[in-house]
Amino acid sequence: MPEDFLELARKVNNWGRWGDDDEIGTLNLITADVVRQAATCVRRGEAFPLAVPLSLDGPQTGAVPGRINPLRTMVAINEPLTGDPTQFCSSDDVVVMGLQAGTHWDSLAHVSYDGRLYNGFPPASVSAAGAARCGIDKVRSLVSRGVLLDVARAKGLERLEPGYPLTATDLDAAEEQARVTVGAGDVVLLRTGQMQLLHEGRKWDYTYPSPGPSTMTVQWFRDRDVAAVATDTLTYEVCPFERDDVILPVHLLHLVEMGMTQGQNFDLEALAADCAADGVYEVFLEATPEPFVGGLGTPVNPVAIK
Amino acid sequence: MPEDFLELARKVNNWGRWGDDDEIGTLNLITADVVRQAATCVRRGEAFPLAVPLSLDGPQTGAVPGRINPLRTMVAINEPLTGDPTQFCSSDDVVVMGLQAGTHWDSLAHVSYDGRLYNGFPPASVSAAGAARCGIDKVRSLVSRGVLLDVARAKGLERLEPGYPLTATDLDAAEEQARVTVGAGDVVLLRTGQMQLLHEGRKWDYTYPSPGPSTMTVQWFRDRDVAAVATDTLTYEVCPFERDDVILPVHLLHLVEMGMTQGQNFDLEALAADCAADGVYEVFLEATPEPFVGGLGTPVNPVAIK
Amino acid sequence: MPEDFLELARKVNNWGRWGDDDEIGTLNLITADVVRQAATCVRRGEAFPLAVPLSLDGPQTGAVPGRINPLRTMVAINEPLTGDPTQFCSSDDVVVMGLQAGTHWDSLAHVSYDGRLYNGFPPASVSAAGAARCGIDKVRSLVSRGVLLDVARAKGLERLEPGYPLTATDLDAAEEQARVTVGAGDVVLLRTGQMQLLHEGRKWDYTYPSPGPSTMTVQWFRDRDVAAVATDTLTYEVCPFERDDVILPVHLLHLVEMGMTQGQNFDLEALAADCAADGVYEVFLEATPEPFVGGLGTPVNPVAIK
Amino acid sequence: MPEDFLELARKVNNWGRWGDDDEIGTLNLITADVVRQAATCVRRGEAFPLAVPLSLDGPQTGAVPGRINPLRTMVAINEPLTGDPTQFCSSDDVVVMGLQAGTHWDSLAHVSYDGRLYNGFPPASVSAAGAARCGIDKVRSLVSRGVLLDVARAKGLERLEPGYPLTATDLDAAEEQARVTVGAGDVVLLRTGQMQLLHEGRKWDYTYPSPGPSTMTVQWFRDRDVAAVATDTLTYEVCPFERDDVILPVHLLHLVEMGMTQGQNFDLEALAADCAADGVYEVFLEATPEPFVGGLGTPVNPVAIK
Repeated sequence: MPEDFLELARKVNNWGRWGDDDEIGTLNLITADVVRQAATCVRRGEAFPLAVPLSLDGPQTGAVPGRINPLRTMVAINEPLTGDPTQFCSSDDVVVMGLQAGTHWDSLAHVSYDGRLYNGFPPASVSAAGAARCGIDKVRSLVSRGVLLDVARAKGLERLEPGYPLTATDLDAAEEQARVTVGAGDVVLLRTGQMQLLHEGRKWDYTYPSPGPSTMTVQWFRDRDVAAVATDTLTYEVCPFERDDVILPVHLLHLVEMGMTQGQNFDLEALAADCAADGVYEVFLEATPEPFVGGLGTPVNPVAIK
Repeated sequence: MPEDFLELARKVNNWGRWGDDDEIGTLNLITADVVRQAATCVRRGEAFPLAVPLSLDGPQTGAVPGRINPLRTMVAINEPLTGDPTQFCSSDDVVVMGLQAGTHWDSLAHVSYDGRLYNGFPPASVSAAGAARCGIDKVRSLVSRGVLLDVARAKGLERLEPGYPLTATDLDAAEEQARVTVGAGDVVLLRTGQMQLLHEGRKWDYTYPSPGPSTMTVQWFRDRDVAAVATDTLTYEVCPFERDDVILPVHLLHLVEMGMTQGQNFDLEALAADCAADGVYEVFLEATPEPFVGGLGTPVNPVAIK
Repeated sequence: MPEDFLELARKVNNWGRWGDDDEIGTLNLITADVVRQAATCVRRGEAFPLAVPLSLDGPQTGAVPGRINPLRTMVAINEPLTGDPTQFCSSDDVVVMGLQAGTHWDSLAHVSYDGRLYNGFPPASVSAAGAARCGIDKVRSLVSRGVLLDVARAKGLERLEPGYPLTATDLDAAEEQARVTVGAGDVVLLRTGQMQLLHEGRKWDYTYPSPGPSTMTVQWFRDRDVAAVATDTLTYEVCPFERDDVILPVHLLHLVEMGMTQGQNFDLEALAADCAADGVYEVFLEATPEPFVGGLGTPVNPVAIK
Repeated sequence: MPEDFLELARKVNNWGRWGDDDEIGTLNLITADVVRQAATCVRRGEAFPLAVPLSLDGPQTGAVPGRINPLRTMVAINEPLTGDPTQFCSSDDVVVMGLQAGTHWDSLAHVSYDGRLYNGFPPASVSAAGAARCGIDKVRSLVSRGVLLDVARAKGLERLEPGYPLTATDLDAAEEQARVTVGAGDVVLLRTGQMQLLHEGRKWDYTYPSPGPSTMTVQWFRDRDVAAVATDTLTYEVCPFERDDVILPVHLLHLVEMGMTQGQNFDLEALAADCAADGVYEVFLEATPEPFVGGLGTPVNPVAIK
């Protein structure tokens, strides 16, 4: 790895900060105080679900092998339990899907490099049985203040240019527009507007190229001690990547070095329109993972409540 | 169907109450006011996730064909994207599971009888493609006040007898103990203590026989206009059923006649211990479905925040 | 349906021919005599497997929703049964796949039209439980003489033009080239050469447009009383379809009217090269379905032995 | 490992016998001559399929985690392609199943011990991507003479005692009864009668305890140079195991040391009845794997033709 990358890695590293056995990283920053304070963001009682629909028409294109869109099939259709249709009839379904196929959180175990997994756990702790360390089930709940940083709108754009790498200045501008100060334990909802492409049915354009966080924004999130960051893109970070000598650097810095949970394919369009209308960019966010034992990720339907 | 059942069905029926096109039933009772008021239940900032772990060790025994416990498998284990393990390596997984296998909400389309689906929609609206009407994706969000009715504790028991049918008197007693008044839009978390059997590894005992709501409690929920009811059992209602001439009567009355969403396999043990300790039985409940298009049900990790 | 189609349907119809309860149609033509005679085709003892590889790289493109390519994942990797790796360690896998995704036979229940299923069974005999009638499990075994009709080669082509509809004259020419007389109980392996596109990695070109049997060849197969026909294409019949007023007419005539089992995605390239080299176009063919109870189709690895 | 086991391992070892790159072991013994000769076993033209039905009612009990019985679900039921039901309507299905759940072949990569995989390949050649070495797709076809060794009948029993370990003497007796000489390239179908328990619906009894090959029969198969052995049991070898200090010794000796493919859950009842009736115990056996790329095993519907 190049030296400048390693230097940044050292600067933002959180290993040991919450003990040698810690498996959830920056989510530790969500204290009871943070949650209690977050609840005061509920002013009108309106809820905004942020997940994209779960179906075969999901955002996956096959580019990531095995990360299949949800295939939901029926195991019973109005099946009369006793054979008599005037009595109880039921319809049941099953699903097969990539846990990272739709709107999801990555677990900290999702990524490693050079023998490094968050907090120094060995990559080999991930096996056919899943993640023995840092699995998504270790995140018991995920409730906090959410802050929408609408970078696109702050730049006066409907959506950012595909391939645009966010800068710390972009985050400052969005924060200023939001009239909130991002702080410890906050979950940042980072809007690029890329989700509009998925809404328009331009699935391939949605997936690539894509704007997103870059090595220029990593320190910002570390300085503010945010608990998690989610984007409205497939890849999370800017793509194509910023340089040839490090692949997916933001994944490595956020997940491995900082131990910061990241979310992808968050649909922030309706929420952003509402925030632009009332000028309030902070929400009560509930986005607790499904408790997949050893899961490398989890589908989630995050709900922002204003 | 016997006449006394039909009479009760008529009494609690909600068809047309929210319009002929309504697909979510009593969830309409959760107004913005209800949500705003519910948020005031966040006092300490502590979150209680209520889902049972998602794994092959889940509560299903095979008794309901096709409702399989989650099988999560790996599609990549520390796979180096470029072939170079000093660079980005990722681990991904997929899952196959019954949508009603673990802690879940039934959609209103889950059950029909005698050609009746909630609000008069034809049962044939459920097809191989899923539920065209009343699918779980129609429930955009599910956030409200949750009230724990700890019937077991109110009766001075660790857990109710297997097969015990709850009565309206039991609910009154639990409500009194909780020192809250259950009202319109509330989500009732109904604790029987049956979940202890699953904790103890007695999976088969957990599934059957089981205490639960009965035809004697249906009117109570209708009178209070609750939005949803969830239990800490597999079958939701008392099992064996109360009578031979109607199978799963509570399912029919709640889902089909009232249009009331029901939850199963909610783990209420830790929450109940906390409520007993501090005497506070109301919570801010966030239990939004995963947006499975046409889904007959959904896994959910409900979070109760106090 | 247009009158000329219906007239052809009446001419080739086999309903009732093998009794009102028959569920396997022309496979009845494979008598013990046919099998015994077929075995004499084994001259050199060389076996040609005809299936395409089963993997995520299979021929499906997503155009048929739910017909997903095989996703095979590991449930154990060198897992020591006792915890001690010097003892027994095992690796196991699971698969999820469309039964019609790769090289497969359609069951006769796969297709219906206008309330018609083979032999007059009601289409409603197919339900969430699968095919109660004409399921693939009703085909106990499928062993017979296979005859390669290499239409492409008989026309002096590497492969037929995409979209080319085969004619009876084409079949006559291929039969003459093969120096065999196709007769009762034979399985015809119909080579168009389209499979070369899949070999070349041109998956989308492989799927569409495609040459194949047409309404001009239906009578020919009926006259010869063949037991089954398989092609080296995705759609089986010529595509785009021959006319606008009947969709997939060959499917309807073969499966519904004749009750003739059809195979798709058979890789006939190596076999065809061998047949061209030695001039022998008849083989002992073993292509028994996997016994999926109620299955609408089945993956199969047909083996041609010369 | 105990010394007597290691000595037997050395005696039967086949590593290097077919080259250092060989991945199919004793299947190399099936020469064209063997196949040609096997075809002469087709005398009456009758086919006996040997697979157990593929459905949720399959033989798996959950004892082997992840080896799930086939769950086949519908993705379309009489779905009109154009929306017009007088035109083409189709029904499609998908399946999820353990590749070793029903009647199956193990690939040679299925088992390792003490860092040993067949032919000295590293166990690490099995990864999340499957078996890079000795995967089931390396077995291009599996056609040979099958010989039924009906040990139960040779001992005058309906079925062997559960837990009975076969001896070389048992095999000799069955061979004598069969009036054939088992030789190089033959596939031995080893009948214990245990399958009767599955037929009777006694699934748990079927799975355990179970008779089967033991360390006393390994040398016999090696001496005869058989190509493969299949049993009518779940575990293949005798269970409980013969001794405490080696787990599943026959798996280790057959798969790892000899490189001999093994089959499980073969239903030999109908075939055995026929062989007893006509006194002919040799068949033409076609049991080619489905070509799962990197597969650790494969479902198979073996067909014995007499």
